[in-house]
Parts: sequence; structure tokens; C-alpha cells
Amino acid sequence: MAQQSEKARAKLHSLNAALESGAMAQVKRILNSGLAPVDIAHLIESSPPKARKVLWEMVEKELEGEVLQNLSEELQSHFLSDMSAEEVADIAAELDTDDVADMLQQLPERVTQEVLESMDQQDRARLESVLGYAEDSAGGLMNTDTITIRPDITLEVVLRYLRRHKSLPATTDNLLVVSRNNEFIGTLPISKLLVSDPNQTVREVMSTDVKIIPASMHDTDVAKLFERHDLVSAPVVDEDGILVGRITIDDVVDVIRETADHSLMSMAGLDDEEDTFAPALKTSRRRAVWLGINLLTALAASAVIGLFDKTIEQVVALAVLMPIVASMGGIAGSQVLTLVIRGEALGHLSGSNFRWLFNRELIVAAINGVLWAIVIAIITFAWFRDPAIAIIIGSAIIINLMVAAMSGAVLPMILKARGIDPALAGSVILTTVTDVVGFMSFLGLATLFYL
Amino acid sequence: MAQQSEKARAKLHSLNAALESGAMAQVKRILNSGLAPVDIAHLIESSPPKARKVLWEMVEKELEGEVLQNLSEELQSHFLSDMSAEEVADIAAELDTDDVADMLQQLPERVTQEVLESMDQQDRARLESVLGYAEDSAGGLMNTDTITIRPDITLEVVLRYLRRHKSLPATTDNLLVVSRNNEFIGTLPISKLLVSDPNQTVREVMSTDVKIIPASMHDTDVAKLFERHDLVSAPVVDEDGILVGRITIDDVVDVIRETADHSLMSMAGLDDEEDTFAPALKTSRRRAVWLGINLLTALAASAVIGLFDKTIEQVVALAVLMPIVASMGGIAGSQVLTLVIRGEALGHLSGSNFRWLFNRELIVAAINGVLWAIVIAIITFAWFRDPAIAIIIGSAIIINLMVAAMSGAVLPMILKARGIDPALAGSVILTTVTDVVGFMSFLGLATLFYL
Repeated sequence: MAQQSEKARAKLHSLNAALESGAMAQVKRILNSGLAPVDIAHLIESSPPKARKVLWEMVEKELEGEVLQNLSEELQSHFLSDMSAEEVADIAAELDTDDVADMLQQLPERVTQEVLESMDQQDRARLESVLGYAEDSAGGLMNTDTITIRPDITLEVVLRYLRRHKSLPATTDNLLVVSRNNEFIGTLPISKLLVSDPNQTVREVMSTDVKIIPASMHDTDVAKLFERHDLVSAPVVDEDGILVGRITIDDVVDVIRETADHSLMSMAGLDDEEDTFAPALKTSRRRAVWLGINLLTALAASAVIGLFDKTIEQVVALAVLMPIVASMGGIAGSQVLTLVIRGEALGHLSGSNFRWLFNRELIVAAINGVLWAIVIAIITFAWFRDPAIAIIIGSAIIINLMVAAMSGAVLPMILKARGIDPALAGSVILTTVTDVVGFMSFLGLATLFYL
Repeated sequence: MAQQSEKARAKLHSLNAALESGAMAQVKRILNSGLAPVDIAHLIESSPPKARKVLWEMVEKELEGEVLQNLSEELQSHFLSDMSAEEVADIAAELDTDDVADMLQQLPERVTQEVLESMDQQDRARLESVLGYAEDSAGGLMNTDTITIRPDITLEVVLRYLRRHKSLPATTDNLLVVSRNNEFIGTLPISKLLVSDPNQTVREVMSTDVKIIPASMHDTDVAKLFERHDLVSAPVVDEDGILVGRITIDDVVDVIRETADHSLMSMAGLDDEEDTFAPALKTSRRRAVWLGINLLTALAASAVIGLFDKTIEQVVALAVLMPIVASMGGIAGSQVLTLVIRGEALGHLSGSNFRWLFNRELIVAAINGVLWAIVIAIITFAWFRDPAIAIIIGSAIIINLMVAAMSGAVLPMILKARGIDPALAGSVILTTVTDVVGFMSFLGLATLFYL
């Protein structure tokens, strides 16, 4: 009971040990020791590829759907591709519409059609309404299992109506009030239903000051709305105001997690769906692309150094010191870049306050530029006993830190305007700029002086 | 109604424009145009320092508490420090216990005492129970506004009892069933209350298969539990099983956001509470620390290069090419580092599967090492027409990529075991390793060959 996560970690550990030693009976015992589907999914995700297959085959039939739903998209499509359309349809019947829709989007069009055809009328209609929206839109995120009521009945009637249900859909905190044509009118929070006089009508009690989500809204905007207004669920309407479904906080939490993950992973050139335990060859292929792109930027830096080979031949201290200039610029720039990317993600930045931020960053770069220029100049002089090279490296540091700050601030805006993800491309481009400018200013100034 | 975020952005834009042009009447009009407290807080956070003060003073008295609650901790303590203890106590009376506790933790001990003394008996007792727990524990995250019921009454009685309330606490999806001594027994989900026969007793209907959170649990573990089990709220108990409060999803969402933010910001040496619009001097000071630390690593790299100045003097192409070796190692290593840090955060890594991961990364490094060694060797040969230097750089690339992979995988574990945050220290240490090993292997091999 206490220390849930300790327990889960211990289980993961003994499971992996059992798998490694080939003690399959023990593996099966651990897996069927009353673990929740989500924990089984977690165990599968935390296992190397071969073990995953073994584990998946040990999952009991009736849990397969829920386990699958909790796996990453990559693993879902991996396991789904081994199933027949009927098996997929069976699993789909038990799950929430939005989860089924996400799963089906992993499958080839042909298989999706087969699955849809083997479903019953009602399930299919619901699913098709979700599949009609982009995966990263409110429509793709919503569930269709809403409880709707009319405005002119009394709460007494509502209570009786609810009692006819065996259970309410998960995370039902509001009943949705709609017109005869299914236009959304307002919500009746369950907590209000419980404390109000049963003789009042829905219209008298319902809230109309509700955050309504258009089906076309981007899922990150949905997440911001939920976060900002502490929502548990919200109604989704189409462009005519017709209620088409509702979004619940558990799905939004996934969006928040993925969005936050996205920046972190992208900045290292990793895919945010990247699987910690993907096989070596697959991983190599993905990483190779990023290394290739970065080789181009490294070559650009080398080309700049190559321009000044005569100067370096004469003053070899330049070769010793030049990485300092490039590296300080890279660090300063990436701090600004990260701050701006996060500010954008939090919705803090707009055109008018951006100018303030840009100026602030210039001042910060000037202050730190001068500070570290002096420090580095002193170290350089102490090391090489050459006042000229000390002044040259100090000047180059100031130039590179200023350029780094400007690039770090402006890059995300420019990239975004061109539809390029700043988290992904920003740091590569920034490093190229700070390397090129760093080497150019340092070696360039040295060439002017020494040659 | 549609496009909430577009509207908010437009408002932010016009507000900033009004502030800049000094049109204070217009600023006031926008601020009081029925904006929700959370939106006002967002406007304040999105404004430069001077504007923030102006905006804060324009906030209407009765909204101050809720606006404050939605601000970052840094801004909270900034504004709170200008208030008297009575003013703080007035504000505290309106807010959730956990939010008040968070705010008070920003204040000096003396002020906190004053605020506590100026509160009424009940509020103070509640607050003190939350303040007794660490800020980053379940106890620090919880609210004390629970609705508790006894197991042997009928649902009919529960319904009547609820109707005596004017409203239920926000995000109440469960009533908490406790014994006479306030020991936690189970939950009665509101949705179950609504669909069950009113003549049944609470005991017959309640759920006992509930995720119970010990007050000492770390908040990131609480977040994992909520995420994994799609919880909306969960009861918090002390070590004796006594119910002390409950945690709601809106507070957990903040934890999830902050945890995810933490890795991203730390890797750039930024504080995760870092304020996008902090004043220049404050920002400079914080950034200077990170630049200083990185200067040390750059100096280490320079020192290594300095060992080989004779070789560079003789073969200046080495100076031109050496950044490529260091940079490729840095990129490869940071990919592994990021993947491992994220894997740890998601709870995917344990001792036994880590060995698999480590081996996988070695294989990936070998594959990409050989691949890019060949590419870079060919480019080098084409550029300098020297087969020796081509072979030397290829070998150095393979060595550095292998070392980078090992360091990237092992570093987070080592740092964590020593209580150091891997996201913060990992990338600096990694870069030092890849720079030193990169320069050492490349220039070292060259020295063996050329001198």
C-alpha cells in the first residue's frame, strides 16, 4: 500500500532477473500476481525487445486491450500488426473511443477498414466521428461517451435517470445540457446536482460559464486550457455548436507529458516517441541522421578555421585557445534558446514583450561578455605572457556572446514562422552560428594583428 | 468562445502595447474586462518587471488571492513581501490549504508566524498540518477540505447530508469513508452514489481497492501514480493510516509540468523556476555561474590541446579538424544522456535492464562510430590529400563515440547515487569527457605518427 513505486520497481527488477535467467514459470507468476493492466504495460515498456514479445504473449486475453492502450504508439503498432482484424475489433469494443482511434491510426488503412466493418453499428459510428479529426486535435482527443440531459427537466428527474445507469463513464464530473438538436447549452456539475433542491430545473442550476472546446483546437491549446482553469473534463463542439464529445483530464495529462518531453528530446535530436529499449539497429539509424546533420555544422566550423591556417601555424596558442571562444558562445546561446522555447511553450511570449526580452538578453550578454572576457584575458595572459592574444580573445568572447544572445532569442521565432520546430533545429543552427562566429572573430582578429 | 488561446494572445498583445505607450486607463480597462484571475496572473507573468508592478496594483482587492495563487513562486514572494501579515491572512482565508502553505513557505519564518496568529482556529490547525510536511511531499501537496462519511449509514442519508452543503470542495469525485478514529477505510465515488440504490449502506457500495497515498511520498511519485491510474483525486494518510487530506489532479498537473520542465531547463543550466522576464542583473548573475562552470571545462580541453602544440605547429590541419572529433563525441554522448535521464524520469530503468541498455548503446556507438569514421576519413583525405591524417581522425572518432556512449549511459547513475541532479551536471561533465577524450585521442595518435 505504502511506497507504491518502490514495490513496482522491485517487481520490475525481479521480473527482469527471472527473464534473464529464463525462469518462465516465475515470470508468468509475477505477471499474473494481480498486476493492473497499466503496470503490465509499464513492465513491457521497461523490457528489452526480446523479453517484450515473451511478456506480451503471457498477458491474459481479457487484459490485452487495456494493456495495449497503455503502451507507447510504437509498441502498439508492433503488437497490433500481429493480430487479425477480428481480434483488433474485439479489443476495440472494450476501450474508450479516443484510445481505439489512436490505435487504429497506427494500422494500415486496409486493416482499419476491416476493423471498422467487423464492429457493430453504434461503435463504428462513434469511432468514425473521432477518426474524422486530426490525431493532435481536440476531436482526436475526445471521448464520445457523454451523458446528456435537457434543460427543462427537474433535478429529481435527472437523479432518477442516472439511477437507471449501471455506471457512469469514467471521470464524469459534469452532465452536459443540450438542446433538442444536440446543441451544447451548459453543464450540470454533479457536485451541484448533489447539493441543490431536487425540485429545481436543470436550467436553473446549470453553469453556462463553461470552457467549450472546438473540435478543431490543437491538443496543446486544449492542455493549456485544462491546466490554466483546473478542468477535469470539458465539452467538445463542432463548428455549428453541436456537442460531439468530451475531453477528460487523463488524456490531457498525456498531452502535457508528451509536449514537455518533446522539447527535451528534440533538443538532443531524439524523437519524443523514442523507445528507451528500441533495438540497436533501429536506434543506430535514427541517431546517424542527427550525427550527420551535426557533422555538417562541424565541417562549417572547420572550414572557417581552415581560412586561417597560416595564422595558426605562426601562433599555435590560437589553436589551443580557440575552443574556449566557441564553447562559451554555445553555452550562452543555448541558455537564451532554451528560455525562449520554454517561454513560447508556456504562452508567455508575444510580439510586444519579445522586444523587451531581446533587449534584456543583449544587456545580459554584454555584462557577462565583459565579465568573462576579462577573466579569460587574465588567464590567457598568465598562460602565454602575450598581451595581444589576451586582448584578442577577450574581444572575441564579447562579440560571440552578443551574437549568441541575439541568435538564441531570434532563432525560435524565425524557425516557427517557417514551420520548423525550434526545439529540433534550434540548437544545431545555434551551434553553427556560435562556432563560425567564434572562430571567425578570434582567428580573424589574430590575423589582422599578427600577419 | 472558440479559439480561447488566440483571444488570450490578442489581449496580451494589446495590453503590452497599452503599457508601453503609457495608456494606463486602457490597461485598467483590459484588466477589468471580466478576465479570470488565472488569466490576469498569466498577463502579469508575461510582462516585463516594471509593468508587472503596475498591473499588480491594478488588480481588484477581492481577486488578489486567486491571482497570487496562479503566479510563480518567485513572483508570489515578491508581491507578498510588500504586504502586511493581516493582508496575507485575509488572502489566505479564501484559498486552498495547500496553496496557502506554498505561499507561506516563500515568506520569512517571522512573517509566517504572524500570519498564522492572525488566522482563526480552524484555518490555522489545517494549515499547520500541511506546513508540517515537506513542500515536495504528498503532505505538502494535499488539501484538507475532505468530505468524510461513516461506513454504516445508507446512501439515502449520505444524499441528505450532502444536500445540507452549499457546495462541495472543487474536484470532489469521491467521498472518503473513515472510521470513528478517522482511519481511512475506502472511497464512495460520487458516480457510484448516483447510480446505486439509496437503501444500500456505504459499506456495501464503497471501493476499498483504492490508491492510498502516504503523506511522506515524494510528489513526483504521486504524479506517476496519478498518471498511471488516471486518478482525479486520492486520499492521503499518515503513518497510522489516519486520513489527513486529499490530493487533486490540478495540483498533480503542476508537478508533472514542473518535473518535465526541470530536465529541459537544467540541461541548459537554467533554474526551472526561472522567470522569463526577470530583470537583466538578476539574469546575468544566474547565467554567469553556468558560464563560469563551463569555462572550467573549456580550459580543460585547452590544456589537453596545449600538450600537443608541437604537433599542431608541424601539421596545422590538425587544428582545423580537431573540433569535428570533439563535437561528434559531444552530440553522440548527449543523445545517450538525454535518453537515460528521460528513461529514469519515466521509471523505465532498473539495474537489470540497464545492463541491456548499456550494451545496446555500445553497439550503436560502434555502428555509428565506424560509419562516420569512414565518411569523415574520406572527406579529410579529399581535403588534405594525406592518408595518415584520414586514418587518424577516423580512429579518434570511433574512440570518442564509444567513450561518449559509455559516459552518457553511466553518468546519470553515478551522479544520482551521489545525490547530484543528472540533468544539471550531466551535460557539463559529459562535454568535458568528450572534449578531453576527443582532443587527446586525435592529437595523441597524430603525435605518435608525426613526431
